Amino acid sequence: MLGVCYYPEHWPRERWAEDARRMRELGLTYVRVGEFSWSRVEPREGHLEFEWLDTAIETLGREGLKVVLGTPTPTPPKWLVDKHPDVLAYDVQGRVRRFGSRRHYSFSSRSYLEHSRRIVSLFARRYGNNPHVAGWQVDNEYGCHDTTRSYGPEDLRAFREWLRARYGDVGALNAAWGNVFWSMEYQSFEEVELPNLTVTEANPSHWLDFYRFSSEQVAAYNRAQVEILRAHSPGRFIAHNFMGYTPDFDHFKLAEDLDVASWDSYPLGFTDMDVLPVSQQDKLRYARTGHPDMAAFHHDLYRGVKPRWWVMEQQPGPVNWAAHNPSPAPGMVRLWTWEAFAHGAEVVSYFRWRQFPQAQEQFHAGLNRPDFRPDVGYFEAEQVARELGALELPPTHPAPVALVFDYEADWLYRAQPQGQEFSYRDLAWTFYQALRSLGLDVDFVRPGGSLQGYRLVVVPSTPIVREETLEALRSAQAAVVLGPRTGSKTESLGIPPELPPGPLQALLPVKVVRVESLRPGVDFEVEWEGGRYRSSVWREWVETALEPIGNFADGKGAIFQNNNLRYLAFWPTREFLAAYLGRLAGSLGLRAHPLPEGLRLRRRGDLTFAFNYAPHPQAVPAPEGAEFVLGGPTVDAYGVSAWRRT
Amino acid sequence: MLGVCYYPEHWPRERWAEDARRMRELGLTYVRVGEFSWSRVEPREGHLEFEWLDTAIETLGREGLKVVLGTPTPTPPKWLVDKHPDVLAYDVQGRVRRFGSRRHYSFSSRSYLEHSRRIVSLFARRYGNNPHVAGWQVDNEYGCHDTTRSYGPEDLRAFREWLRARYGDVGALNAAWGNVFWSMEYQSFEEVELPNLTVTEANPSHWLDFYRFSSEQVAAYNRAQVEILRAHSPGRFIAHNFMGYTPDFDHFKLAEDLDVASWDSYPLGFTDMDVLPVSQQDKLRYARTGHPDMAAFHHDLYRGVKPRWWVMEQQPGPVNWAAHNPSPAPGMVRLWTWEAFAHGAEVVSYFRWRQFPQAQEQFHAGLNRPDFRPDVGYFEAEQVARELGALELPPTHPAPVALVFDYEADWLYRAQPQGQEFSYRDLAWTFYQALRSLGLDVDFVRPGGSLQGYRLVVVPSTPIVREETLEALRSAQAAVVLGPRTGSKTESLGIPPELPPGPLQALLPVKVVRVESLRPGVDFEVEWEGGRYRSSVWREWVETALEPIGNFADGKGAIFQNNNLRYLAFWPTREFLAAYLGRLAGSLGLRAHPLPEGLRLRRRGDLTFAFNYAPHPQAVPAPEGAEFVLGGPTVDAYGVSAWRRT
Amino acid sequence: MLGVCYYPEHWPRERWAEDARRMRELGLTYVRVGEFSWSRVEPREGHLEFEWLDTAIETLGREGLKVVLGTPTPTPPKWLVDKHPDVLAYDVQGRVRRFGSRRHYSFSSRSYLEHSRRIVSLFARRYGNNPHVAGWQVDNEYGCHDTTRSYGPEDLRAFREWLRARYGDVGALNAAWGNVFWSMEYQSFEEVELPNLTVTEANPSHWLDFYRFSSEQVAAYNRAQVEILRAHSPGRFIAHNFMGYTPDFDHFKLAEDLDVASWDSYPLGFTDMDVLPVSQQDKLRYARTGHPDMAAFHHDLYRGVKPRWWVMEQQPGPVNWAAHNPSPAPGMVRLWTWEAFAHGAEVVSYFRWRQFPQAQEQFHAGLNRPDFRPDVGYFEAEQVARELGALELPPTHPAPVALVFDYEADWLYRAQPQGQEFSYRDLAWTFYQALRSLGLDVDFVRPGGSLQGYRLVVVPSTPIVREETLEALRSAQAAVVLGPRTGSKTESLGIPPELPPGPLQALLPVKVVRVESLRPGVDFEVEWEGGRYRSSVWREWVETALEPIGNFADGKGAIFQNNNLRYLAFWPTREFLAAYLGRLAGSLGLRAHPLPEGLRLRRRGDLTFAFNYAPHPQAVPAPEGAEFVLGGPTVDAYGVSAWRRT
Repeated sequence: MLGVCYYPEHWPRERWAEDARRMRELGLTYVRVGEFSWSRVEPREGHLEFEWLDTAIETLGREGLKVVLGTPTPTPPKWLVDKHPDVLAYDVQGRVRRFGSRRHYSFSSRSYLEHSRRIVSLFARRYGNNPHVAGWQVDNEYGCHDTTRSYGPEDLRAFREWLRARYGDVGALNAAWGNVFWSMEYQSFEEVELPNLTVTEANPSHWLDFYRFSSEQVAAYNRAQVEILRAHSPGRFIAHNFMGYTPDFDHFKLAEDLDVASWDSYPLGFTDMDVLPVSQQDKLRYARTGHPDMAAFHHDLYRGVKPRWWVMEQQPGPVNWAAHNPSPAPGMVRLWTWEAFAHGAEVVSYFRWRQFPQAQEQFHAGLNRPDFRPDVGYFEAEQVARELGALELPPTHPAPVALVFDYEADWLYRAQPQGQEFSYRDLAWTFYQALRSLGLDVDFVRPGGSLQGYRLVVVPSTPIVREETLEALRSAQAAVVLGPRTGSKTESLGIPPELPPGPLQALLPVKVVRVESLRPGVDFEVEWEGGRYRSSVWREWVETALEPIGNFADGKGAIFQNNNLRYLAFWPTREFLAAYLGRLAGSLGLRAHPLPEGLRLRRRGDLTFAFNYAPHPQAVPAPEGAEFVLGGPTVDAYGVSAWRRT
Repeated sequence: MLGVCYYPEHWPRERWAEDARRMRELGLTYVRVGEFSWSRVEPREGHLEFEWLDTAIETLGREGLKVVLGTPTPTPPKWLVDKHPDVLAYDVQGRVRRFGSRRHYSFSSRSYLEHSRRIVSLFARRYGNNPHVAGWQVDNEYGCHDTTRSYGPEDLRAFREWLRARYGDVGALNAAWGNVFWSMEYQSFEEVELPNLTVTEANPSHWLDFYRFSSEQVAAYNRAQVEILRAHSPGRFIAHNFMGYTPDFDHFKLAEDLDVASWDSYPLGFTDMDVLPVSQQDKLRYARTGHPDMAAFHHDLYRGVKPRWWVMEQQPGPVNWAAHNPSPAPGMVRLWTWEAFAHGAEVVSYFRWRQFPQAQEQFHAGLNRPDFRPDVGYFEAEQVARELGALELPPTHPAPVALVFDYEADWLYRAQPQGQEFSYRDLAWTFYQALRSLGLDVDFVRPGGSLQGYRLVVVPSTPIVREETLEALRSAQAAVVLGPRTGSKTESLGIPPELPPGPLQALLPVKVVRVESLRPGVDFEVEWEGGRYRSSVWREWVETALEPIGNFADGKGAIFQNNNLRYLAFWPTREFLAAYLGRLAGSLGLRAHPLPEGLRLRRRGDLTFAFNYAPHPQAVPAPEGAEFVLGGPTVDAYGVSAWRRT
Repeated sequence: MLGVCYYPEHWPRERWAEDARRMRELGLTYVRVGEFSWSRVEPREGHLEFEWLDTAIETLGREGLKVVLGTPTPTPPKWLVDKHPDVLAYDVQGRVRRFGSRRHYSFSSRSYLEHSRRIVSLFARRYGNNPHVAGWQVDNEYGCHDTTRSYGPEDLRAFREWLRARYGDVGALNAAWGNVFWSMEYQSFEEVELPNLTVTEANPSHWLDFYRFSSEQVAAYNRAQVEILRAHSPGRFIAHNFMGYTPDFDHFKLAEDLDVASWDSYPLGFTDMDVLPVSQQDKLRYARTGHPDMAAFHHDLYRGVKPRWWVMEQQPGPVNWAAHNPSPAPGMVRLWTWEAFAHGAEVVSYFRWRQFPQAQEQFHAGLNRPDFRPDVGYFEAEQVARELGALELPPTHPAPVALVFDYEADWLYRAQPQGQEFSYRDLAWTFYQALRSLGLDVDFVRPGGSLQGYRLVVVPSTPIVREETLEALRSAQAAVVLGPRTGSKTESLGIPPELPPGPLQALLPVKVVRVESLRPGVDFEVEWEGGRYRSSVWREWVETALEPIGNFADGKGAIFQNNNLRYLAFWPTREFLAAYLGRLAGSLGLRAHPLPEGLRLRRRGDLTFAFNYAPHPQAVPAPEGAEFVLGGPTVDAYGVSAWRRT
């Protein structure tokens, strides 16, 4: 199904009915409204003006459109901020982040929590049983603009409370963090500070707990809204629209309170801005299409976060917020839409119905131009609507390959990279690209999540291996590939007493006795099954009775295997992983062949989709006699083909 | 005429008479004094010590020198700042900008305005009718060190007042800025904040109004001084010394209150520091001469700002303030001086008489060394003085080409670049260089200024086309070339309802329906009259019934013409403009031929000057039989030739 | 002798005796303890817990180990900071530098001075006569993490006092700084501000005095501790452990109060982080060894600071604090240790006994791993201990070459570089590398220190030439080479009235009448004895009756000589200096031949050591029949050879 984001408050009331009619005619099902409307529904404290929103919803509903109603908390109005300055967040430099754009609040502000509850209750009570309201979006893009973490007085207060709840006794905190080092011991929780603005780096355990706290504050804030919506709006789903890679809070955890995960897909801006890192060459090559794994990575991540998932905002043309904002190549809006469905999306909703010719996003295209004419994206959406009408989409099945994705790993390696280039994001993205370049479908699983049914599991790096992770690995039938630093840390970011990989040694008897991080250009060679692969960034020294299955040039072991578990004692490149995982997948009976540049595959049920990000047609690897339901055996530049498994 | 900047307060009183005598002997006419003297004329509040200044002026006057007296407001003394801390400005990070250098005041400080009026009145009353005082310089280098804009409490207060005066009603402000977007609506002017330190980018309309406000504050502050000087110093001219490209305030507007525009010309520092951007290759090639268009651009700009214009400070040797401070190539001080006169300067005044061996600028050369011996620049100035004595300079006539220069465009594209490389400065400089490399003389005209008499007009980009601009274009006989984004914005930085180029569509029926900005390396090709030109940065899609006269590689129109108006729907490179404007100028009967590297031409009356920035002699394009009044048909390295039109 | 740093507070009490025994067995003599122990000896104000430290010292002493006891002032506990927030320092951006790591205090805090005296008195009284305590380390790594300079209220107050003491009269300060420039004159010392956060650059004389003040504050703070230790701990030596290049305070001056200078040697981290600048190529080539002159430079510097000197912390494996932390090549821990002894170290002490698996430095190796097993460094230290036992080290004699090293020059050129690349550090390091690449031994001498006995003296640049420096140069028998800008400044950073090199003109009649600084890529050529050398960065113009002995390409003089003094009127490259100093040294009868890449020599008494930083064996330049006491005529990769002069 298709949807769109709509801002009735931006347009004259006279337009609404025509807009609704045209939405229906285009084939849209859902319309998201309201998430930035606070100053219009409550222009002054307690002065409520819901009538316009009543009318807008009614107008949409009258055309049979289903409304997803956003709670308006991403943008508290100025009067609220002026009355409660403690609403505002502080940046890591210690400066107040002021009113004038959006997300200007701290998740730890008590005033803001109270006002959020109040406004959400008002919305929930008024629209909770409205027949046109099909579901809710809580707030908008948590964490965007680096807003998960705040460094002000309210945050400090809440952090101290959180630590007290976690540790009970300040001595336990001192012991967990190793505060005896550098005389950092606290005598009470009231002595604890935030970890920013210290003379040199703060204790990484301090940072990690602050990051955990910050993540939980987002979830708690979200839960407060969800509870109200559940109470007053029975039968409606609750969603949030996540962003491109925003690892500052644990999406798996937060989504436990949701029914639907959704995300906002802007492939061009994400490629230009390195939401996931893209080489300079690929930035040029894919400037007008987005990197071919960019959207897919997120589709698979958010499907892992929640089986029901949407694209809540789909890029429909050029945007405004990247350093460079190209026009999508012709066909890309259609391609992106189909790609989301291929990966299992329930709904793809375009952002936005019409380009608003003012304020920050005036250069952000919509399906319609600001002069009320349809824009390019409109016609591509129309084509998808037609195609969707002609095709029953089968259900999405689990993939053969799982990638264990660990938000905490991102925090931990940020708190303690030990080498400037060691980034969890980069490592996970490298594994993902290698798998996708082989044509493999991938599921994302949280650490400790079930690995049953998978044939191949990759764990880019999970530094803290808890009992549930150990158990999932122990019971996995899959071939498992563990990346460097897996198991290298205790719960409180110490080195395990038995050395890394800590508790994993029970399954894989290796002991990492030394590590090093390397400047780009200082590299080493790994030899495996006759091939030689150069790498850099990270290397480990391992003591073990196992015979290595790959070695460094100096003869030390680089790759180890015990039963179905494998361990990589170095930073793997995409080239190495493509070779290594390709051969491994092959040995497991999975079809894994390198795809040509720009081509990507994805199965949904008995359908196989091929997406062509290249500027020239390409042959698709369909079996002879395949039944094509979209396109054909040669997929156009920026085109889509799909065939049924015969 | 020649002049010099002199600081009697730096030197023993016994030196003054000899200094004055030597100035006269060198052939100087004007001497600027006093602009940094506040702590010497008022060392404590109300404790006035004017005697030394009386004597200094008298000593200079006795040698027949004319004094330009600076008001001492660029450097308020410490006692004043301590008494009124609200004098100080705030930087964009929210930090107070402290005492200890210069320009440590905010244009919006009420205390400072009051104290400025007081000290200027004291100066004006004491010296307003002094026979040796020929004119005034108000303050010094407005805007230098990023001081136009300040972000403190006094600025906020004044900004709110300014907005109230502009909009009357806060609803009008909300409507103009589109504050319904992201619930940014204000209920009163007292709720408005400054646009800095927001969570993500503030509303660009907010920024634009803040930039306009900041510009007007400078003009208002300047006017307050001018009014006092006019009242007490009849018959004296009033000047200000502007800087190299400092677009933060509208120089055309401020200069309405002046009699003389002047500017401070430091070609080497400007080239090293990218006051106008210079390629790495040209930075090396022109390290000891300055870029050959650097001074000329400013001469032409300030002649446009005011027909009577000076170089108030001419670089006389190495300076201190750039990242690298080379010694000028031999002859360059003379060349720069002649170039200023060729472009129409009334006076060229060297900075400074003698190098002061202390404080921030101790490495800034003067005409004399700190050991009281003449420095290299002294001898070059002496040569110019001799040459000037032998040559009557004809009056300056309008050039055949006008460049419409728009300060507001700089602010607007800074508030909303939409693509990281889109800079008004770069665009205007690109047009200018292309014209100058063809040997064309150029006048600068403000938007809405008369275009009568010009054969060719270039408008690099004027986003807000007001009625007076439209009228000037409508009545122009010239061929007009409009750059991208011209007419693309409403008065409040919205997209015009009829889409860009907004009201210009009445003259040029094109409609820009989409734009894109591009990463360097993502480029496109424009085909025009058989040539192909690669470009990047910016491209537009146009709907029109006109047949394009140039096309993109995908067949879409890139260059459009209707009657005498032409529109470029892309970011033009210097190479394209040199070809395009060269052919266009030729078709208009203008002589426009590519000049060799380093050579530049400029006409003043019946004289044509050639300036050689190259390290080797070059032939000048003088007609046969030309009468040379400086140099000859081959111009020396770093040399000047001038001939009379025959 | 060998030593180690040990933190009993990190380990269970039950381990201490075994640790002590193993230290003895390894052959260690000294153990440093206590410098970060404040929160353990005084967990709450006045609540003292010395028992554990008593026991630890006793346990070590029982094995015959000598204790170096650190005063615990680098890490004041949280309760102290909370009680006296004025303890905290401020950064140059004006922000408080908070608790949570180390060195969180300002040297100007009166509260902190008082508490430091109190805790040091407690330590000194309790352990001053302890038979196992052999000496003291005052604080730890002064200046680390940019902590010499602080910009808070306590610093301002102390700076004003310091200025009052220096100048007596504020008029004298105004005259010295040239404050008449830009009306910066003060009416009282209470008006003076700190030089940070000004609108544009503050007066460089202001900065220089602030830098001098900051340096003296460190020395005064150190002296306060030393006085207490001397009073209560007779017969014990007092040391401080300096860092790699930390020029913010004058180490010669501070060390006047010490008995032993020591420093902390981390060759890999220093090479990665440009403690002394290393080319990109050398960063790769020497990533696992450190640059071959990196440790040596500091050994020679600290031997100049104090004849008795130690390496207090020797890198024993990978560290944690650099951007990249490689594992040392096999043999490097031994090589570094021997190199220190070759340069005259009395003791080399490894940091640390055992890797602590928590907090900031958990990735910093020790001699032992966190799992209580010996690490790689343990075995290399063991080898050195054996080798040391078999070899009597002769005393260290003065070198034939002196390098005059001037901390004030670093401050002055930082306050006033005049060209972005002009850095004292880089210049001194360039001279040093040139000398060492010729196989010459070098002593570091402070400005004004005796130059008697040296054959060759290089003065990279001493801008302020005081009477004692002049006298040392006048009486030197050595050939002296003076670098650019020597003698260029007065005591208060003005240009000398007679122009540079100021008072040096009495010995060397040249006058620098102009200088220039150059962008990299803008270069010039120097011709000397038939060779041509390209250089950049800095060039001078000289007036003199002397015939130059080297010239610029334009014929102007570049190198001047009068009697035994030579002056380089330009920035010399390492290549030029290797040629110039090589030939000069040869003419003085010194053996000076270019060494192969990676090989370095150093003599101690009648021994000559060769150190091989290259990854392949190399022949050493030993005479035939040399008696090898370590290694042989071919030195292994990462190996050491030493032979006796025959």
